[in-house]
Amino acid sequence: MPRVVVNVMPKPEILDPQGKAVTGALQRLGFHGMSVRQGKRFEIEVDGDVTPEVLEQIGQAAETLLANTVIESFDVVND
Amino acid sequence: MPRVVVNVMPKPEILDPQGKAVTGALQRLGFHGMSVRQGKRFEIEVDGDVTPEVLEQIGQAAETLLANTVIESFDVVND
Repeated sequence: MPRVVVNVMPKPEILDPQGKAVTGALQRLGFHGMSVRQGKRFEIEVDGDVTPEVLEQIGQAAETLLANTVIESFDVVND
Repeated sequence: MPRVVVNVMPKPEILDPQGKAVTGALQRLGFHGMSVRQGKRFEIEVDGDVTPEVLEQIGQAAETLLANTVIESFDVVND
């Protein structure tokens, strides 16, 4: 089935407490020199083909529901 | 700065209540014919180059901390 991926990440200027916590936990586990930011990944299976209209619709869905565009940015990837 | 991405998704045989909720919400908003699974995306900035050893280490980090491999699968992408 055709699949589209939406990646949602906190904007660079926004603090990312989850990512900070993960970075700290990795260091305590002995993984050094890594800085982590945590976001969300949505895998969307589409009925039918992935047309430009479908991508446009998924972009709208991302903007309305999947991402909070005040603090998050997203990108739509035809996977 | 070099960046590695770890994608963590619920395994196909595992129920995904978050994804189900998103799918339902999209339908109520008028976005039909989409089935969503929700996972996590970790963007990891690495000090220095992304060598095979670094990728191996990030794979270990993903297995230990980022993913619960009982119910989630992950992949490491040199971005």
